[in-house]
Amino acid sequence: MLSVEQTPPVLQQLESFRGIVGDAHVYVDPEVLSAYASDETEDLHYLPDVVLKPRTPDEISRILRICNEHRIPVTPRGAGTGLSGGALPHLGGVLLSLERMNSILHIDERNLQVTTEPGVITEVLQNAVREKGLFYPPDPSSRGSCMIGGNIAENSGGPKAVKYGVVKDYVLNLEVVLASGEIIWTGANVLKNATGYNLTQLVVGSEGTLGIVTKVVLKLLPHPQLDLLMLVPFRSAEKACEAVSAIFRAGYTPSALEFMERDALEWVMRFVDNSIVPIEDDVVAHLLIEVDGNDMDVLLKDMEGIAAIVQDYDCSDILFADDAQQKEQLWKLRRRVGEAVKSNSVYKEEDTVVPRAELPRLLKGVKDIGNKYGFHSVCYGHAGDGNLHVNIIKGDLSDEAWNGSLKEGIREIFILVKELGGTISGEHGIGLVQKEYLPLVFDDVQLRLMRQIKQIFDPKGILNAGKIFDSETL
Amino acid sequence: MLSVEQTPPVLQQLESFRGIVGDAHVYVDPEVLSAYASDETEDLHYLPDVVLKPRTPDEISRILRICNEHRIPVTPRGAGTGLSGGALPHLGGVLLSLERMNSILHIDERNLQVTTEPGVITEVLQNAVREKGLFYPPDPSSRGSCMIGGNIAENSGGPKAVKYGVVKDYVLNLEVVLASGEIIWTGANVLKNATGYNLTQLVVGSEGTLGIVTKVVLKLLPHPQLDLLMLVPFRSAEKACEAVSAIFRAGYTPSALEFMERDALEWVMRFVDNSIVPIEDDVVAHLLIEVDGNDMDVLLKDMEGIAAIVQDYDCSDILFADDAQQKEQLWKLRRRVGEAVKSNSVYKEEDTVVPRAELPRLLKGVKDIGNKYGFHSVCYGHAGDGNLHVNIIKGDLSDEAWNGSLKEGIREIFILVKELGGTISGEHGIGLVQKEYLPLVFDDVQLRLMRQIKQIFDPKGILNAGKIFDSETL
Repeated sequence: MLSVEQTPPVLQQLESFRGIVGDAHVYVDPEVLSAYASDETEDLHYLPDVVLKPRTPDEISRILRICNEHRIPVTPRGAGTGLSGGALPHLGGVLLSLERMNSILHIDERNLQVTTEPGVITEVLQNAVREKGLFYPPDPSSRGSCMIGGNIAENSGGPKAVKYGVVKDYVLNLEVVLASGEIIWTGANVLKNATGYNLTQLVVGSEGTLGIVTKVVLKLLPHPQLDLLMLVPFRSAEKACEAVSAIFRAGYTPSALEFMERDALEWVMRFVDNSIVPIEDDVVAHLLIEVDGNDMDVLLKDMEGIAAIVQDYDCSDILFADDAQQKEQLWKLRRRVGEAVKSNSVYKEEDTVVPRAELPRLLKGVKDIGNKYGFHSVCYGHAGDGNLHVNIIKGDLSDEAWNGSLKEGIREIFILVKELGGTISGEHGIGLVQKEYLPLVFDDVQLRLMRQIKQIFDPKGILNAGKIFDSETL
Repeated sequence: MLSVEQTPPVLQQLESFRGIVGDAHVYVDPEVLSAYASDETEDLHYLPDVVLKPRTPDEISRILRICNEHRIPVTPRGAGTGLSGGALPHLGGVLLSLERMNSILHIDERNLQVTTEPGVITEVLQNAVREKGLFYPPDPSSRGSCMIGGNIAENSGGPKAVKYGVVKDYVLNLEVVLASGEIIWTGANVLKNATGYNLTQLVVGSEGTLGIVTKVVLKLLPHPQLDLLMLVPFRSAEKACEAVSAIFRAGYTPSALEFMERDALEWVMRFVDNSIVPIEDDVVAHLLIEVDGNDMDVLLKDMEGIAAIVQDYDCSDILFADDAQQKEQLWKLRRRVGEAVKSNSVYKEEDTVVPRAELPRLLKGVKDIGNKYGFHSVCYGHAGDGNLHVNIIKGDLSDEAWNGSLKEGIREIFILVKELGGTISGEHGIGLVQKEYLPLVFDDVQLRLMRQIKQIFDPKGILNAGKIFDSETL
């Protein structure tokens, strides 16, 4: 057994942690640690020293005071569905799971707001407010398992973002525990706010590096009553992308406008054992297009208008979803594309985003770069937002190329993204795996400001250390 | 003549300033200084030492380098239409007018974006994009004279915010000159962004204290083609406020939902010499309600639905605007209420905001507090957002009460606002005149974070020093 001197600082604090959260919620057994060693990012694993599952902001405050004093790294984690390694405890230390903070505290039907804890699963929250006729639009593909807290950390999007916006557009106010253990609210529960700096929007998308979000006040909308869905096959992927911006230029705002390359659709159909969509030989990509609202005549007119536009871009026969079941089937395919790709091969996912009309150039560029570096990519994503997920498939690529020259290819993709007016993550965050590319889009001044902000909130750098930027302290 | 030793630092730099912006754009004559001594806030006047009118980010960068070196206060100014004293040069120094930076640089019809300089008048921008069928919704009442840069500084709202959101919801990316003279972009021209901290949203609403915005990239929407407008008179102001949240609870999202007390409407009708609205004796407040969209049947149905709801709240005969001219007349009345109140008496305007359903309690509380402290208030505002402008009228109040005990009354209003879950400014900002009330809504920890952020961006505190918080350096 290690003497006290040799025991890592974090393990010296186990008794204190047990005193705070209770014995049952402090885990050091290897099996549990291993279950918290990965998120959904590539094939990465890092064991934490201890997993803590607090139940209250006060418990988190007391944990952070200890960790701050002893410079123990703290990695916050929701459901671990992230795709940039944000929840990976790569420095060991405390893995702080928010999963027990899973109560929806108050659905305020008078004000169209909900106050929730961060450990609530996104779909659970959506269904709970849906029962009151209300709508929380942000819906990452992982909505059945991801948590609101993680969505806030990454400023998540999802298919509805194109019409309804992303997480940041719904967050009114946050309760946050700072590294010091101090607890603040970032704003007020109001729709308009011109009172001091916008701390709320600074925390949204900060990937757990500025504080631990313990309560969330979200804006809700009346739930749209109707929607229509169609799947449009194209004989040219670039033409499919061109059709996207034509739809918006014509004045339509679909509630979803998703792009899938042929591989993506074929793989996911195999993956879910569900071949509802016959694909003609010359089809190379699809758009999945939804409109929603409260008047069927208007929706039908919108769908007709959009169908007329896509005809100009060399599309094949459009599949209009007949009923709720077929809509659900199509959406299931779209939502599970990521899993299907993952099950197919080792892969790396790049979360590129550009101004919408630049999508065709982005897609062409990705393929050209793939040819140059010898990799195959499967692309899909939220075309209406200009957000293209580029999945680079290991396939037959040598380990050498995979771990070596591929990085240059990724770098070229991101340089292209920047040239097109875009940036390197639309909704997955920078986390651990993208931080080396951050200097491609931010110069020293921007990075200095961000690092200094980090230092204000977390002077010793204990919170999700080494995410977004390399760790500076600890 | 003063010797060099006696000359204030700012006046020692006049030659340098002339070298940067040209002789013609450096002003020290008292008449010009006086024209820049006030904004639209109360009856406040502070003379700057010099007015500079740069034309480029590079000129601003060079000006700020000098001011930073010599600790010269710099007050940025758009059109000077602000209501919290943000553009008042209360410490003298440089008044930096952005009025010459008034070009719309690029209307990107492919991506539904516009890139503009900050000195463009809001309505000019709106009309320019309207010609392309596009829509920039944020429309402060002063839109005919206020500038985009000022709108960003204050995170302005306006009537359309209830459906379309405020300025922050449209800003994608900003070019900002820091106090050091360094020039950054805050983000990227994309609809979704999970790449580092959200510097864009930190600058929006920061009231010119973090940097000088020199280019602005805004998201645009397709312009709605149709709208309908009605004016609903109520026999109880609280019932009018109750009707507001009932409309939203029923699933309607009007494109404007404005509240006006009887005094406000009567005063503005006198002010614009326009008595299109006969007001029955027992009517004490009005709601102005607009719906917009692209389908007249839907709009008519919405209007009918809303009209049915307001009947339950003791309203009198609804006036439906007949045509474009009558709509414009009604909107003119609403937009000029502020001017009418101002012309009527010395006044102080409080920009309260609460969760929408708390409006009736806020209004009742404001009147009770008025009775207690002996002041009359005229209230109007963006009821759909819970944003109520409380205009406290000096009227017969003694100077002693006006400058003394009234502050206690305002303090009580803000305490009530806080109790109701709201905050002290919805769209006017804190500026100079509200900063003493900021500790009512933020504790020491929140204020410390904000002050530290200020220090990162502007270590010597030269930029709009003494706004939002008391000046700490210089």
